Amino acid sequence: MAEQTKIRVGVYGASGYAGLDLVEILAKHGHVELVFAASNTFAGQTVPHTDLRYVKMDDVTLEGVDAVFLALPHGVSAEMAAKAQVAGCAVIDLSADLRMDTPESYREWYSHAHPHPELLPVPYGLPEINRAHLVGKRMIAAPGCYPTTTLLGLYPLLKARWLLPERPVIVDAKSGVSGAGREPKPTTHFVEVFGNLSPYNPGRSHRHVGEIEQEMHKLDPNVGMLVFTPHLLPVDRGLMASIYVELKPEYDSRDVRALYEAAYDQEPLVQLLAASEQATLKHVVRTNGAAISLTLVTRHLLHITSVTDNLRKGASGQAVQCLNLMFGFPETTALL
Amino acid sequence: MAEQTKIRVGVYGASGYAGLDLVEILAKHGHVELVFAASNTFAGQTVPHTDLRYVKMDDVTLEGVDAVFLALPHGVSAEMAAKAQVAGCAVIDLSADLRMDTPESYREWYSHAHPHPELLPVPYGLPEINRAHLVGKRMIAAPGCYPTTTLLGLYPLLKARWLLPERPVIVDAKSGVSGAGREPKPTTHFVEVFGNLSPYNPGRSHRHVGEIEQEMHKLDPNVGMLVFTPHLLPVDRGLMASIYVELKPEYDSRDVRALYEAAYDQEPLVQLLAASEQATLKHVVRTNGAAISLTLVTRHLLHITSVTDNLRKGASGQAVQCLNLMFGFPETTALL
Amino acid sequence: MAEQTKIRVGVYGASGYAGLDLVEILAKHGHVELVFAASNTFAGQTVPHTDLRYVKMDDVTLEGVDAVFLALPHGVSAEMAAKAQVAGCAVIDLSADLRMDTPESYREWYSHAHPHPELLPVPYGLPEINRAHLVGKRMIAAPGCYPTTTLLGLYPLLKARWLLPERPVIVDAKSGVSGAGREPKPTTHFVEVFGNLSPYNPGRSHRHVGEIEQEMHKLDPNVGMLVFTPHLLPVDRGLMASIYVELKPEYDSRDVRALYEAAYDQEPLVQLLAASEQATLKHVVRTNGAAISLTLVTRHLLHITSVTDNLRKGASGQAVQCLNLMFGFPETTALL
Amino acid sequence: MAEQTKIRVGVYGASGYAGLDLVEILAKHGHVELVFAASNTFAGQTVPHTDLRYVKMDDVTLEGVDAVFLALPHGVSAEMAAKAQVAGCAVIDLSADLRMDTPESYREWYSHAHPHPELLPVPYGLPEINRAHLVGKRMIAAPGCYPTTTLLGLYPLLKARWLLPERPVIVDAKSGVSGAGREPKPTTHFVEVFGNLSPYNPGRSHRHVGEIEQEMHKLDPNVGMLVFTPHLLPVDRGLMASIYVELKPEYDSRDVRALYEAAYDQEPLVQLLAASEQATLKHVVRTNGAAISLTLVTRHLLHITSVTDNLRKGASGQAVQCLNLMFGFPETTALL
Repeated sequence: MAEQTKIRVGVYGASGYAGLDLVEILAKHGHVELVFAASNTFAGQTVPHTDLRYVKMDDVTLEGVDAVFLALPHGVSAEMAAKAQVAGCAVIDLSADLRMDTPESYREWYSHAHPHPELLPVPYGLPEINRAHLVGKRMIAAPGCYPTTTLLGLYPLLKARWLLPERPVIVDAKSGVSGAGREPKPTTHFVEVFGNLSPYNPGRSHRHVGEIEQEMHKLDPNVGMLVFTPHLLPVDRGLMASIYVELKPEYDSRDVRALYEAAYDQEPLVQLLAASEQATLKHVVRTNGAAISLTLVTRHLLHITSVTDNLRKGASGQAVQCLNLMFGFPETTALL
Repeated sequence: MAEQTKIRVGVYGASGYAGLDLVEILAKHGHVELVFAASNTFAGQTVPHTDLRYVKMDDVTLEGVDAVFLALPHGVSAEMAAKAQVAGCAVIDLSADLRMDTPESYREWYSHAHPHPELLPVPYGLPEINRAHLVGKRMIAAPGCYPTTTLLGLYPLLKARWLLPERPVIVDAKSGVSGAGREPKPTTHFVEVFGNLSPYNPGRSHRHVGEIEQEMHKLDPNVGMLVFTPHLLPVDRGLMASIYVELKPEYDSRDVRALYEAAYDQEPLVQLLAASEQATLKHVVRTNGAAISLTLVTRHLLHITSVTDNLRKGASGQAVQCLNLMFGFPETTALL
Repeated sequence: MAEQTKIRVGVYGASGYAGLDLVEILAKHGHVELVFAASNTFAGQTVPHTDLRYVKMDDVTLEGVDAVFLALPHGVSAEMAAKAQVAGCAVIDLSADLRMDTPESYREWYSHAHPHPELLPVPYGLPEINRAHLVGKRMIAAPGCYPTTTLLGLYPLLKARWLLPERPVIVDAKSGVSGAGREPKPTTHFVEVFGNLSPYNPGRSHRHVGEIEQEMHKLDPNVGMLVFTPHLLPVDRGLMASIYVELKPEYDSRDVRALYEAAYDQEPLVQLLAASEQATLKHVVRTNGAAISLTLVTRHLLHITSVTDNLRKGASGQAVQCLNLMFGFPETTALL
Repeated sequence: MAEQTKIRVGVYGASGYAGLDLVEILAKHGHVELVFAASNTFAGQTVPHTDLRYVKMDDVTLEGVDAVFLALPHGVSAEMAAKAQVAGCAVIDLSADLRMDTPESYREWYSHAHPHPELLPVPYGLPEINRAHLVGKRMIAAPGCYPTTTLLGLYPLLKARWLLPERPVIVDAKSGVSGAGREPKPTTHFVEVFGNLSPYNPGRSHRHVGEIEQEMHKLDPNVGMLVFTPHLLPVDRGLMASIYVELKPEYDSRDVRALYEAAYDQEPLVQLLAASEQATLKHVVRTNGAAISLTLVTRHLLHITSVTDNLRKGASGQAVQCLNLMFGFPETTALL
């Protein structure tokens, strides 16, 4: 690619699974010079896809850095966001720290006070839904895999306000194991996952319920409650949200496809599948896109399957998409 | 085990995945002498877990045979059931041929006339729900993995008639690949399944919808419509039905556990998990039992996870349980 | 099973993968009453397949206990063996602590002094090779998966002294992940193992080289050096040793099958496969047996594939086989 | 990428696993216009990564086509190579049809006469070994995954003639399932492969033994015989050759690394790993490169691990590398 002016970018949490994919994408981004990759655990080791070595977080100097990605644990991330803001860096936060609009809702779902309430609210980095509020911004909260995949699957119906308010929105979700992070845990031991399928935090107990409902309500204040059950799948990557909804009586499921076409036909990273096809993980794994299939169960009942790569459109790919919008680069740079 | 009088039993379709598990279970059944294992494809080869060799279906002689299991493709199975009945054999059919109560409903879901309408209706071989109609019978239609797992997950609520009739019963189901049969197909090629998750026949298009609704209606004639989406999981065995239902306003989800305890506390093959635990495939794979977990989402919304081994409680284990009831053996003989 | 006199048995390290399989086997052993299952990590939790709860190691009382299994980390295990001996218990040690015949060889391979040199040597618990020295013994060192599978694959050739001394014995081994233990580690994270295959400790650097060569030399003092490269396989269970050897010029590979038949025809837990068949993991996973296939590459070059379930014949199943020999029970009790 | 003159290229067998990867690579190749993708099975369906639809082989017109790739079954491929030659197309054949230098050796390993003996010999398309004979050629026989991975692992030792002639070269190889092709077969059924590991065609019975030895002998006419046992691994992609060799007494294993560095330091697609690291499938899967690790077992015994993605450096990536050499494009175009 021809030489051009590049912004200087750093990644915190660069050795986690999202961080690794982020570095891989940025390494081929024509408008980005990757200047550091921070990881306390792997400090000193080589960073894949680059000539860098991991540095400790405290050894990073932010002077002259244009933007930082935070792929850090929640709690830690808000602290670093505040520091980077002071240093004049643009911030794309991949953690959950900046996604809730108010300190009160953060406390409700995370059970402790927000460490930097003055930062809230931060624009919600789901470009297909919120693009207008991301262009040129200096801080973005990039959503993770469950909210992204669920919201993309529901967005056209929410925007049109076609869902029956009295009915729950039921989301049966399944995630690859990389979504649980790189730190070894009993639940991510190969022997425990192999040949298994496990629900966890079912119903309304998962923390992402609050975040997803917050965004649903912005689009349709009367939408019904979210029922959300995630499962751990025996695959490394990929996320599926299987969505069951009911339409208001005045709408007809046969008209829903047109809504989705209108919403997504111009979206380079969202693929609406033909009526004859169902979305599967293979449609999206190792890509930065989402795929959606629609099934008209009855006139008023719909089944929607929405899929992403949890580390790409569900994490690092989307974060780069946000960077592109912040700095005025073509939105899909390094993502196609 | 001490020598005792044994019945003479044969298996048709003995080389398929259900047939193989059936032979394995029967080989250690103290009241059974396995006298033949029929398979046109594998005729002449040795039958695992036995001293037999597979024989062609046409080479079987039913004289002196007390009971036959039919693990055959639908269509073929009804023919054999009729022949076996004439020969005086008790029949446990694992295919779908004898599960619909009327030729009309069979034609509706299978798109062709029933080959032996005079056989219908046949008792539905789900002992935990239908035990009284199975004891001593000569022909039983043993249900497969999707109906068994779904119906066990719903049974206490259906029997009590606690479900709100206006609401759909939503079942998001996931099956191991052995459920798709042993014959090689593009959809069961290792490379297609590995790392993937695929919905198929979503909504109300899967043939088992008719069968499951038929049995739901026997328990609760007013229950809402079934919405049923199966998925192919990248595991060899195991089936999960993730069920979302709404209660009538006069009932409270906090009382549901007592319903399930009443239904299943004396059932040796159904395990109701503690409130803190979610059912996973590992609870049941390579066993003949089912496991169920309950999540009270709200006062009226419930999430239920029901799991079986699709080849055991979802096929061959249940078929042997039916045999035991037909012949008066202890019901769990060879199954614990 | 009819009531009978039972010995009282306890398991240390009962929550590890080998310990879990050990408990499962013992739970159905007609001559064993399982009186405790010790696990510091899981103390207080229920023990699968039993009515017990895990107890802390220090809370165990050995009074009245006839035998203990030690499925403990090396180093810890020798300490407990010494204590159990003092308490009058028979000991089956599944760790590597008691497998080397001398403190010197232990120090060579484990880089520290043996904690209880007075216990050495202990009979090597591979019944098919060493049965005569196990009957009635009070302490046995049960070998693990790599030595068991390798030695069973080589035994008939070693005993006959047919191998050319100048040639290395090359063993390319592959193990399921449960062999690496239940404690979460980066190397056993699902995402790291899924879709991968990794050699480790290649050549002569793995600790089991010393142990395997020690036993090889007992059978054939002139045998060549062992070259041994283990690999981590993306499966939960199963171990394959792929063995390449050269015969002395006076022997012919066409006569080797007769050697193996003579060695194994009467062994209930070792299956010599037909010349047309190759041993695979499916031959043995979840069984207590081994399977072996022979390939005559040339007149003097042989390829041997030997497989076991690493947790069964490669660990707990073999340990129970040793117990049976120690106490005079039929050798395969609870193992078929 | 800036517009430039492009050659017109077609792919036969474009719907198989190698064909699919080939199309994916060619779709982003700046010097290639993909003009057809032939597949009798999938004719009419869309071709992934392109705007094309599959056409039947007989419907292809070769006029104006500069080069064709043949990812066809052996036998069929030679026929098409002859036709394409007549039509004036350059040919890169991915089948085994053109790899043997003489009709006699083809008949020896494939048990039937070569369909087009006049085509033989064809340059062997392994650029790291045979680059000088590939530049500017009009027909190349691109080797498959087993020969490529094995020969790259051995090449520096063969070229230097350091291997002891009297000793066999032992290769224990493991392949992902895509190597067995896309057509469903019992051996590639998910349930058969999942959790399993299977040797096949062990010793000297696999057809690739002849091809590998042919190329070994060109480099070192005195090298010992090949002993080669492939295994089917439960992964979709990736191939490992685990190689065990013995050096002549006058050479020392401590000098081998320098040989490999000399051979591969300037090779962009072959990575020699540090002495502390072992080659794993993750080093190469979904890349067009190979990785090699060396273990000095003793002064004269070496263990070498060589890995590739069987569909990339082991098939389609290498075929494109050959195309680049034929037409004078930078050798790694579309491959890094």
